[in-house]
Amino acid sequence: MANPRSRTRPARTGSGVTLQQVAEHAGVSLATASRVLHGSGTRTVGEELRRRVESAAEELRYISNAPAQALARSTSAVVGLIVHDVADPYFGAIAAGAMRAAREHRLMVMIAATFREPGLELEYLRGLRAQRARAVILAGSGTTDAAATARLAEEIAGFEADGGRVVCIGERDPELDTVAMANHAGGGLAVRGLWELGHRRIGVVSGPEELLTVSQRLDGARDALRSLGARLDPADVRTGDFTRAGGRAAAVRLLTERPDLTGVLVLNDVMAAGALAGLRDDLGLSVPDRVSVVGFDDVPFAADLRPSLSTVRLPLEAAGEAALRLLLDPAPDTPASPRRIPLDADLVLRGSTAAPPER
Amino acid sequence: MANPRSRTRPARTGSGVTLQQVAEHAGVSLATASRVLHGSGTRTVGEELRRRVESAAEELRYISNAPAQALARSTSAVVGLIVHDVADPYFGAIAAGAMRAAREHRLMVMIAATFREPGLELEYLRGLRAQRARAVILAGSGTTDAAATARLAEEIAGFEADGGRVVCIGERDPELDTVAMANHAGGGLAVRGLWELGHRRIGVVSGPEELLTVSQRLDGARDALRSLGARLDPADVRTGDFTRAGGRAAAVRLLTERPDLTGVLVLNDVMAAGALAGLRDDLGLSVPDRVSVVGFDDVPFAADLRPSLSTVRLPLEAAGEAALRLLLDPAPDTPASPRRIPLDADLVLRGSTAAPPER
Repeated sequence: MANPRSRTRPARTGSGVTLQQVAEHAGVSLATASRVLHGSGTRTVGEELRRRVESAAEELRYISNAPAQALARSTSAVVGLIVHDVADPYFGAIAAGAMRAAREHRLMVMIAATFREPGLELEYLRGLRAQRARAVILAGSGTTDAAATARLAEEIAGFEADGGRVVCIGERDPELDTVAMANHAGGGLAVRGLWELGHRRIGVVSGPEELLTVSQRLDGARDALRSLGARLDPADVRTGDFTRAGGRAAAVRLLTERPDLTGVLVLNDVMAAGALAGLRDDLGLSVPDRVSVVGFDDVPFAADLRPSLSTVRLPLEAAGEAALRLLLDPAPDTPASPRRIPLDADLVLRGSTAAPPER
Repeated sequence: MANPRSRTRPARTGSGVTLQQVAEHAGVSLATASRVLHGSGTRTVGEELRRRVESAAEELRYISNAPAQALARSTSAVVGLIVHDVADPYFGAIAAGAMRAAREHRLMVMIAATFREPGLELEYLRGLRAQRARAVILAGSGTTDAAATARLAEEIAGFEADGGRVVCIGERDPELDTVAMANHAGGGLAVRGLWELGHRRIGVVSGPEELLTVSQRLDGARDALRSLGARLDPADVRTGDFTRAGGRAAAVRLLTERPDLTGVLVLNDVMAAGALAGLRDDLGLSVPDRVSVVGFDDVPFAADLRPSLSTVRLPLEAAGEAALRLLLDPAPDTPASPRRIPLDADLVLRGSTAAPPER
């Protein structure tokens, strides 16, 4: 009787096949086979040779031994992407962009999620360093916690000293290559958009204050109001978790305690989804007739919300792609300063914004 | 003048610190230090010893050399999770569940996305095998492509022969440990829910037919209609990509060509978001007054759609968690048959379903 798990027999696998045998089978040099299968060396290999080597490896069932190669080269084809929350569409879109770009270069992207625990970011960075990862993209926001930032900077320095490369998405450390998101400018765009619709009482549903992304967006809103001759009263700001539930609770508190507000900026779209639900279902306030709501990020579902969400659009997939390209682009030999790719923000007006109600 | 990149100097990092030094500093045996820092051996280490070793490693800035360890143990602390699309909230939720469970075991989860190219799944599995990954979760749907399935089965057999473990989420191969999603039952639940509301003309917006997930959900709907004395006319089914745009186009075609339909089952929520937009904005059909719509999965934004989406809820985070626990649970020594964890589906009725319009 056939054992249903008999497929696990150690047969037919090419663990014993050497790179030399693959090279001979393909009729190429060992160096060429290594270049194709291990990405070693700096010279490129023509398409025809590449195909021959790959089909020889396929036929012989050659399995490259990645740990051995990583040891030899002290680097691997792994790029780490550290995010806060893999189920958050903001990071999903960034990851999709980075992965698309990685595919072109036959790199594997290892995504790790910290669930917003600052200690875990450090732990993952160490893990990736121990894996001899080639490069790391830090996609989560930096924090205002100076001690945590210093520990991370030290770990990054060690990673770079080992030959690894680090790119940040969002401002984090002026010494690091950065894909800069227009957080400050975006906060200003949202406030000006509401102002132009006629709103004069504008409040903010904010995220965790220790996140730099949050403070930059909030500062942008504050500075824009100031330049319009108004000011953001601290009592018009409520803080919640960067989650749907956090946005819902903070929005309900804000409009309960400050009922004269007519416009609300919510500092990310996931929170804004919760804010729309809370205003509608908990407070019975009509959006946009009674209150206008502007989100931040333009995640894929923003246009499908009830009502469709006006929001500050950040080019998330492009950010992931730009970060990966920055990692692969050789840095100048004697870098005068770290590189910085600034990305723009746009305000997208949809169904959640309108003129304020008549008095 | 300080060089802004001077942090990349190879100082202060513990590349030269050995495990022996860490063990001495902590006052423990080399074996204990290895157990704590490399997860080697099978004996567990008490919390107090663990803490001493970890703080010694921290103080000495010990960097474990993962490739060397992976070579020695032929396995690493990496679990691969292969998904179709990392920006799809279905996979985001599964990944979040798997990562939460992985954290408890100090494992790193490497997520790779195939963007639904069957060849890429094979390539990633090879890459993970070459990395000596300890285990792989295949979260994407299997396909009806027999040749691709056979190639994958062979690769899985090789991975297992090397000591790796594989778990599937969703039915895929009866020989593999599986977290079974209630795709067939869920298709039936949706149809019965619409039937009980009074719908007798029910159509389906379906995904790519070669995906097993799709055919199982569709079969469930078909079988339920048959058991109710009706039948699913092939002309009442339209197929699109498993994306928002795919769902929108297929729903618009379906309701244009079959205007007498009053209920539509859409085979995933991302497609359903597109279907709601298409029915509303392209055809001007009111949901649920003119057409009722039921989605599938209950992704986090389903309740926030316009109108809130009635859908078949699958326990996605629980599935990711269950898959990881299956990987870590030692398999019986002489497995009579692969293990199977079946998860339930529920029908959640929200704003997108109602009784059909009067004739």
